[in-house]
Amino acid sequence: MNMINKVKEKFRPEQLMKGNFGIEREGLRCDRNGRLVTTPHPEVFGNKLKNPYITTDFSESQLEFITPVFNNIDDTYTFLENLYDVTMSELGSELIWPQSMPCNVPSDNKIPIAQFCNNEQGKEASNYRKHLLSKYGGKKQLLSGIHYNFSFDEKLLEFLYKQSKSPHTYQGFKSQTYLRVARNYLRYRWLIIYLLGSTSVVHTSYDMTGVPTLDKFGKDGFSCDGALSFRNSKAGYVNRVELYPNYSNIDNYINSLIKFVRDGLIESPKELYTQVRIKAYDNNNFLASLKQDGVNYLEYRSIDINPFDRAGLAKNDIYFMHLFNLFLLFKEETINMKWQQEALANQYHVAMNGLYDISLMRDGQQVKKSDWAMELLNEVMEFNNFLQLGQNDIVQGMMDKVKDASLTYAHKMLMQVEQLGYIEANIRLARKYKKQVYDTRYLLSGYEDLELSTQQIIKESIKRGVAFEVVDRKENFIKLKRDGNVQYVKQATKTGKDSYITTLIMENKTVTKKVLKENGIKVPKGNDFDTIDNAKEVISRLVDKPVVIKPKTTNYGLGISIFPAGATQDDLFAAVDVAFSHDKSILVEEFIAGREYRFLVIGDEVVAILRRIPANVIGDGMLSITKLVEEKNNDPLRGQGHKTPLEKIKLGKIEELCLKQSGYDFDYVPEVGELVYLRENSNISTGGDSVDFTDKAADYFKYIAVKAAKSVGASICGVDLMVRDITSDRSAYAIIELNFNPAIHMHCYPYKGIERNIAAKVLDLLGYPVIGC
Amino acid sequence: MNMINKVKEKFRPEQLMKGNFGIEREGLRCDRNGRLVTTPHPEVFGNKLKNPYITTDFSESQLEFITPVFNNIDDTYTFLENLYDVTMSELGSELIWPQSMPCNVPSDNKIPIAQFCNNEQGKEASNYRKHLLSKYGGKKQLLSGIHYNFSFDEKLLEFLYKQSKSPHTYQGFKSQTYLRVARNYLRYRWLIIYLLGSTSVVHTSYDMTGVPTLDKFGKDGFSCDGALSFRNSKAGYVNRVELYPNYSNIDNYINSLIKFVRDGLIESPKELYTQVRIKAYDNNNFLASLKQDGVNYLEYRSIDINPFDRAGLAKNDIYFMHLFNLFLLFKEETINMKWQQEALANQYHVAMNGLYDISLMRDGQQVKKSDWAMELLNEVMEFNNFLQLGQNDIVQGMMDKVKDASLTYAHKMLMQVEQLGYIEANIRLARKYKKQVYDTRYLLSGYEDLELSTQQIIKESIKRGVAFEVVDRKENFIKLKRDGNVQYVKQATKTGKDSYITTLIMENKTVTKKVLKENGIKVPKGNDFDTIDNAKEVISRLVDKPVVIKPKTTNYGLGISIFPAGATQDDLFAAVDVAFSHDKSILVEEFIAGREYRFLVIGDEVVAILRRIPANVIGDGMLSITKLVEEKNNDPLRGQGHKTPLEKIKLGKIEELCLKQSGYDFDYVPEVGELVYLRENSNISTGGDSVDFTDKAADYFKYIAVKAAKSVGASICGVDLMVRDITSDRSAYAIIELNFNPAIHMHCYPYKGIERNIAAKVLDLLGYPVIGC
Repeated sequence: MNMINKVKEKFRPEQLMKGNFGIEREGLRCDRNGRLVTTPHPEVFGNKLKNPYITTDFSESQLEFITPVFNNIDDTYTFLENLYDVTMSELGSELIWPQSMPCNVPSDNKIPIAQFCNNEQGKEASNYRKHLLSKYGGKKQLLSGIHYNFSFDEKLLEFLYKQSKSPHTYQGFKSQTYLRVARNYLRYRWLIIYLLGSTSVVHTSYDMTGVPTLDKFGKDGFSCDGALSFRNSKAGYVNRVELYPNYSNIDNYINSLIKFVRDGLIESPKELYTQVRIKAYDNNNFLASLKQDGVNYLEYRSIDINPFDRAGLAKNDIYFMHLFNLFLLFKEETINMKWQQEALANQYHVAMNGLYDISLMRDGQQVKKSDWAMELLNEVMEFNNFLQLGQNDIVQGMMDKVKDASLTYAHKMLMQVEQLGYIEANIRLARKYKKQVYDTRYLLSGYEDLELSTQQIIKESIKRGVAFEVVDRKENFIKLKRDGNVQYVKQATKTGKDSYITTLIMENKTVTKKVLKENGIKVPKGNDFDTIDNAKEVISRLVDKPVVIKPKTTNYGLGISIFPAGATQDDLFAAVDVAFSHDKSILVEEFIAGREYRFLVIGDEVVAILRRIPANVIGDGMLSITKLVEEKNNDPLRGQGHKTPLEKIKLGKIEELCLKQSGYDFDYVPEVGELVYLRENSNISTGGDSVDFTDKAADYFKYIAVKAAKSVGASICGVDLMVRDITSDRSAYAIIELNFNPAIHMHCYPYKGIERNIAAKVLDLLGYPVIGC
Repeated sequence: MNMINKVKEKFRPEQLMKGNFGIEREGLRCDRNGRLVTTPHPEVFGNKLKNPYITTDFSESQLEFITPVFNNIDDTYTFLENLYDVTMSELGSELIWPQSMPCNVPSDNKIPIAQFCNNEQGKEASNYRKHLLSKYGGKKQLLSGIHYNFSFDEKLLEFLYKQSKSPHTYQGFKSQTYLRVARNYLRYRWLIIYLLGSTSVVHTSYDMTGVPTLDKFGKDGFSCDGALSFRNSKAGYVNRVELYPNYSNIDNYINSLIKFVRDGLIESPKELYTQVRIKAYDNNNFLASLKQDGVNYLEYRSIDINPFDRAGLAKNDIYFMHLFNLFLLFKEETINMKWQQEALANQYHVAMNGLYDISLMRDGQQVKKSDWAMELLNEVMEFNNFLQLGQNDIVQGMMDKVKDASLTYAHKMLMQVEQLGYIEANIRLARKYKKQVYDTRYLLSGYEDLELSTQQIIKESIKRGVAFEVVDRKENFIKLKRDGNVQYVKQATKTGKDSYITTLIMENKTVTKKVLKENGIKVPKGNDFDTIDNAKEVISRLVDKPVVIKPKTTNYGLGISIFPAGATQDDLFAAVDVAFSHDKSILVEEFIAGREYRFLVIGDEVVAILRRIPANVIGDGMLSITKLVEEKNNDPLRGQGHKTPLEKIKLGKIEELCLKQSGYDFDYVPEVGELVYLRENSNISTGGDSVDFTDKAADYFKYIAVKAAKSVGASICGVDLMVRDITSDRSAYAIIELNFNPAIHMHCYPYKGIERNIAAKVLDLLGYPVIGC
């Protein structure tokens, strides 16, 4: 307790709740009927051995998600959730089976083993799987779980070392510490299995070798009374012989593993399926690295996938695990030569009968599960309170589960299976999560404050195994890295692939027009003005002529007025004032008749074409324009500040002027079906609608758009093209504007039409292709 | 007159005053004693045959300036002036002889013939000069003049063609028109020689072969009574035999030239030294091009260099020439078979005796020079008034010269030579112009409204023969072009050589620091804040600690407060408010002790290092700080808005806070010699002084600065480095900031130290090196 006092003095609670966390989660791909699918792992995730986040485990149909290591729980959980979401978005009609015990699986010879590239690495991976198949059978391999990897904050360990006045080196101290935590965890793992176990039923197709015959449960399940976690039972994925490594010190541990291999019990240390794995710094040279550098971190393998959380693991449970680990770090051990055998027996007993208040063995003595559990949780609660770690509610929740087994995941699953059947209960969950993902597919969990376009880039990075870091959240400034390639990206389309001057040319509409004209591309005729007086002098000659009045440099269509049929001098002057309120110079241009399309050019290619329809409402004969706009703005796809694929329509000065052109005001009640435009400009950012036209445009205009982008040297360019008939290459056109920071989300999620994966094109441009063989 | 009426109806005066103008001007390089120098043409202008603007004529010491073709007179004149200025700035102690007749020249064998590259083109150029030397002698070759090239606005010619209902093709009509103007010009050239002639004296060293023996004039000149333009006399540069090409139509013209060559009178058409040259579209294939495409423009060769104008030609005289040409375009011809001989005789007579009211021959009749001149000028005035061309004052000035010969350039030159001697009179003018250039060396005539840094880039472009165009004046946006290389440049250092993301990284101080830190470069510790409350909460713990408070993204040192010795909470809070008034996020950083230096990195090199000393005044024991600042601000090098190399000191809130640190206010009267700082930050833009340290810094810091620039991928980067002792590579340092748009003028024109030609480095980077052999 002396040590805990010192820790309390030295460390703030937030610091103690930090550490290093990395989660692995597996998941079977299945169809809507809960049958394992045999389709290949989606190509978009590339080479399975190169993608650090999304790969397969044993089977081609068994997804494996791996988060990077984070120093806090929130980021870890968020990443895990995102791995689920981005993968789901690539699965078409398939689902991810939401729990650890398999879905409806075929016989072993029909289970597809994961396919790899035809190279040395690939062959090795493939052969290893064949070996496992022959040794353990295919169905067992389909068990999915959570691997919880963690280490303590290094500053905490260093502090403990200093305080301990240990005769060991720091490395030795660290190994000893992790081994003690491992021993403690193994002793108390039954509690974790009880609290988090959720495999209380199996499908009738599963191979239950290892456990007594079960009872039929629900219409298509097997179970037995009190069962809580078949995955942690003998029917789970265990070694063929029970193995007890020597955890007393690092040398003994290493020697015991060497002996297992020498005795032919396992092929290599990675075949040791213990509930804790001791992890080295270089796990590819495990024993050598462990001997040289000691223990790096621990991996817990007891946790079942939580079917009630999309990510497969509840965030609160991660918090609890970390609190529990901190507790174990300080927990003193009792002396008991048979502790490993006792702990394993307790594990199996809880797994098979834990929903009852069974008796467990503690140092040779029987103890009621609930008494022991409450004793431990009370200690955890005390520990939490003393260090003010703030996890009281979570610990209380765990205590409630101890007192009332019906609160456990295992029991909840039982109830659902009883009612719906095993497949149906799980498929309902899988479909619910799929729908959640679809409904918010334009968002990335934990990054909703970023611009939509940036969220798309991050999503695509995750899919391709590109590491990302948000370097400035408010500015949507991210850093991408894969192998040696580091790229910074701001607002999704501001990249290192465009030169500075290219963007400055595009920013300046006068210069843009000059360059385009020099390159033989059609642009509207016009003039720029630096003073209101000069502008008004010229514009007084343009009464009743079709003109466009716009600020010279601003974006998003702000301050633009368009008069296709001409306007009075007063209205023109008002438009000049509006334009000047956005910039010190303005442009007055001829109005080009036709429709405006946004051509998005990336690299040498038009990757999407969108027609943007100016902000509009359709009348119902009852509501005023003000009311119709209010109603249209209620659509959840419409938001403000570019946080949704469409923007709310505003009722400002420009909208008022626009209506006035048609002789309307905001109080006008349009007739049934009457289409009323509120803007002349069609930017999404001013409330416009978006319709995908990528496959409808004549190739000629795609050629012109690419040529326009190239003429200013742009790699990423939003080309705004006005054309009478986009399907006819003989139609007259003019390029209105080039945009150096085109939004991509509007192409990804149009109001109508095909959703285009633009982020993929951006990542291709940045040198992060999908990695093949 | 019918035609003129139609022209008046159709064309606005501004349009008529347009046309196409290109001026050539030669000039001898001489020393302070008026002796021709024998130093090589400055290397900075590169290969003489490749530089379109600045080259040599016959002699290595004979500069030739060539403007591009402009459609207006102002731009043409400005360019001519700029050619003088940028050349002068590269001549060290040498001068440009300000008039047509040579300075003190050595004997023919000592006159250095222009040197060329050792290649075919170079040898041809060299051999041609040797041929001229043997045929005409060296001294005659040193005569310098103005070649005035012009054509009429194409729209005017097209209109005249349509109105004329000519049976010719348009091309034929055009050639006929130019030939008529040429004939008219030749008839009346005596008037131009009278009005613009300014070679009334020659040096005693000059070779006066061709004219009768002259009288000694002044202490070192020769002249004769009434002489006005020796350059246009027989002592000028004329063919050895008087040649009269046939100007009646284009075929006759061509045939007459072919005959001259066949007869061995000239080697090629370019050796024909007539007062007008007919010019083709392709003057390298002159006769063939003339035959195929007709006349393109005319070149007048009568105009002496005007010693009273730095550019060698007054802008008003160009306006007069254009008005005169327009007049000649409509002037009807009289029939006279001997008109060419008469015109030549009139030329020589005016050249040698024109200061008197001599008699000239008009169509076989004697007429008094003044009568004829006034008759013509009255016609010109009428023409001007009818078309409202606005040149009344200029024509009136010419009339005055006719009435009073003492107003002519020739007479003014005579008077000065009489008083000072030939060499001294001219050298005084040359030195006056040189001083003018030096005093405003940071400016480029006609472009003073652009930023200083942009003016430097344009100057350097002119030197290197790079064509430039200001594409957006207000934005300092220019286009450069040489051969196939087109580069746009904004504000001198925003170029296509930096990527967009590089500048965005530099713009964001938080991201910059992150990247620098990752690359092992030292940066100050600190935090950024998005809200005033958060900032103040943290900063309340930093009372009395050395800190810097600054906005996250703005430039120019605006809103930065530095407290090297700490400050009270109130002062810190005030600084937070100031910083937030410039940006939505601010940085609070540790103050790094030492001095701040700006390292300018271009490419892989530190091209300049500047110490900027915070705005300061030195006391005199009498004046208050307010008054001392006023006085310091009177320095012409200090201006506002970056239009001068140094900026005026302001007395604002930040200055007030800074003074408060020392217990002073604006009314405080510093003691004699007391140095009082008004700013903690040392930016030039907030009134700081600049001192060049390029040669004093330890190489280590240059290495660090380049590494910092490279770590964000920058090609052009202003690295602000804080270091205790810049001469010692062991001194502690930190990088405070990287700037993506560093001003270059402060290195070009420091308050103290060596002036660095940064524009040259920028042009090297942009792919416009000095062109060698």
